[in-house]
Amino acid sequence: MAKEIERKFLVAGDEWRDGSPGVPYRQGYLSAGADAGCTVRVRVAGKCAFLTVKGPAAAGARDEYEYPIPVADAEEMLERLCAGGRVEKVRHRVPFAGRTWEVDVFGGENAPLVVAEVELPRIDAAVSLPPWVGAEVTDDLRYTNAALARAPYSRWGRP
Amino acid sequence: MAKEIERKFLVAGDEWRDGSPGVPYRQGYLSAGADAGCTVRVRVAGKCAFLTVKGPAAAGARDEYEYPIPVADAEEMLERLCAGGRVEKVRHRVPFAGRTWEVDVFGGENAPLVVAEVELPRIDAAVSLPPWVGAEVTDDLRYTNAALARAPYSRWGRP
Repeated sequence: MAKEIERKFLVAGDEWRDGSPGVPYRQGYLSAGADAGCTVRVRVAGKCAFLTVKGPAAAGARDEYEYPIPVADAEEMLERLCAGGRVEKVRHRVPFAGRTWEVDVFGGENAPLVVAEVELPRIDAAVSLPPWVGAEVTDDLRYTNAALARAPYSRWGRP
Repeated sequence: MAKEIERKFLVAGDEWRDGSPGVPYRQGYLSAGADAGCTVRVRVAGKCAFLTVKGPAAAGARDEYEYPIPVADAEEMLERLCAGGRVEKVRHRVPFAGRTWEVDVFGGENAPLVVAEVELPRIDAAVSLPPWVGAEVTDDLRYTNAALARAPYSRWGRP
């Protein structure tokens, strides 16, 4: 098991862009278990695909188990089993002050949301914030991708 | 994707036993999604382990995607993420009339349930029933392993 420990911020502006196209991600959820708190994600990332199990989130840290799977399987599962909600985004990897930030530019019903994440060895590890990040949303569960699959950003605030 | 097509029967008696010990299975569910109808199973089968995604059941057939994973990962997931319900059983493979039957002898809270399954190329494929099978329970969803994890056999009928 890996432990996923990360902090998440909103992104304002385009300063972080370096001209690279990023990698298109399409993902959906087989389980975004309200009860167990456990999430099972299917992701196609460029030419690769993964099945990922995440434990309940607690203070920015989650158990994470990730396995590569055939892209054709992932495409089928997205189509047939994740119809309830999918997320599309383009992921950019942006180095800043010795760490790699992942900047996710959401598409579809989650546009124009842009979020930046940084993975850390410990949740209280020192981290220099780039000038292009805004409010921290690590603990705001609406910004989890599983939540965005069910309740896309563009529909927030609507009844 | 594989298509899992099978029929399931109750087993009466011990005639099917050939003296082999069978393979111990321990499994649990990361999602037994009432909503999506999609199931994600973690299984330790002897010295192997698997993560398996199954689509909704329809007339004895289900989409199935199965991936081998490290046993240590599976043990951890069973312990940490499947606490809500696990199933223990010993699986015996029993040849009969040209097909292989899987006879599952349940333990723990599902004892003394014994169920036999036969996988078929089509749901209406001809199949000779062994003399030791009883009532067919293919369409009785209480007998799915995901249901038995939540509502074990020994508790049926209790309020």
